[in-house]
Amino acid sequence: MRILIVGASGDVGTAARQALETRHEIIAAGRNSGDVKVDLMDPASIRAMFAKLGRVDAIVATAGHSHFGPLVKMTEKDFRKGLDDKLMGQINLVLAGLDHVNDGGSITLTTGVLDRDPVRGGANAAAVNGAISAFVRSASLEMPRGIRINAVSPALLEASVERYKGAFPGHLPVSSARAGLAYVKSVEGALNGQIIVADA
Amino acid sequence: MRILIVGASGDVGTAARQALETRHEIIAAGRNSGDVKVDLMDPASIRAMFAKLGRVDAIVATAGHSHFGPLVKMTEKDFRKGLDDKLMGQINLVLAGLDHVNDGGSITLTTGVLDRDPVRGGANAAAVNGAISAFVRSASLEMPRGIRINAVSPALLEASVERYKGAFPGHLPVSSARAGLAYVKSVEGALNGQIIVADA
Repeated sequence: MRILIVGASGDVGTAARQALETRHEIIAAGRNSGDVKVDLMDPASIRAMFAKLGRVDAIVATAGHSHFGPLVKMTEKDFRKGLDDKLMGQINLVLAGLDHVNDGGSITLTTGVLDRDPVRGGANAAAVNGAISAFVRSASLEMPRGIRINAVSPALLEASVERYKGAFPGHLPVSSARAGLAYVKSVEGALNGQIIVADA
Repeated sequence: MRILIVGASGDVGTAARQALETRHEIIAAGRNSGDVKVDLMDPASIRAMFAKLGRVDAIVATAGHSHFGPLVKMTEKDFRKGLDDKLMGQINLVLAGLDHVNDGGSITLTTGVLDRDPVRGGANAAAVNGAISAFVRSASLEMPRGIRINAVSPALLEASVERYKGAFPGHLPVSSARAGLAYVKSVEGALNGQIIVADA
């Protein structure tokens, strides 16, 4: 298959890529690096990317940031960060990318652990994850041409533990290999409208 | 208790109001009607409302619209409608209202049936509901001064069936009295971080 991975240079994107690249042609996309550059917050940038690439069999989104910080200090602007970046970025990719996925292909989004196992400071990330999960379940009812849509919900990656030091007390990190399998399940399997949990 | 209901004139707001007004002082707020006018999409308008009202024991949000329409025709602008209105409106009310709730008080948001029982055309509403539900579960870990936060997830109201004609095939509508009880449970009960489902 010809698979576009957006956010391919991040920890989760790397996990997805390593799990898929031995059997598939991977096009790595990112904000600042990759085979093709794309800004998911700008629908015109997404359209330009697909004009260049043509059709793909699968789109995998592992891109996006949200705001992390105490609820009592959170501002509207903080909260909008996650909506504009991780949520609208992935939604824009679905809405603009749908026409560029081959019949019977798939779209895989990335949610995360914080809506199903919340931590202090994670209210914005939880909201973004909850939105992506619910969107996927609902959108799966309307996907055209046999295209499937799922989301992977990885636990904190072992590769990311150092960066989030102390923010996830008691969470058991998952290996990149295990997280990568969830993307394989979504892309190569038959699931539609599912949240594929990748816990350790 | 002194209870602020924002969106009090809608079908769900009316259900909440009728269930609470016999035992409590209700302040009805809305975009165009009520004891006090407020635009939840404008944090300055929310702050002005609380400057006028002073402290309350409970905030109930039953306000907000999302986009309803086919996924394959959905645009970024359509999707942002629900984010800006129903989601950011309620989030703004929490962020700006937290300081104006008495110790041991409560905040009750409103999600809906479409994230847990999706229908065609409901992907934006589902995403908004999923975001509110996940936000509530996460935010409940960080609420100050013993303030609780929950969301009510009402089924389609009997009072709203006519308006959504045909869009919810096989859904069993719930009475306003039954939906109102879920708000009573959140405001008068002890729950925190829960999604209180009001199905028929």
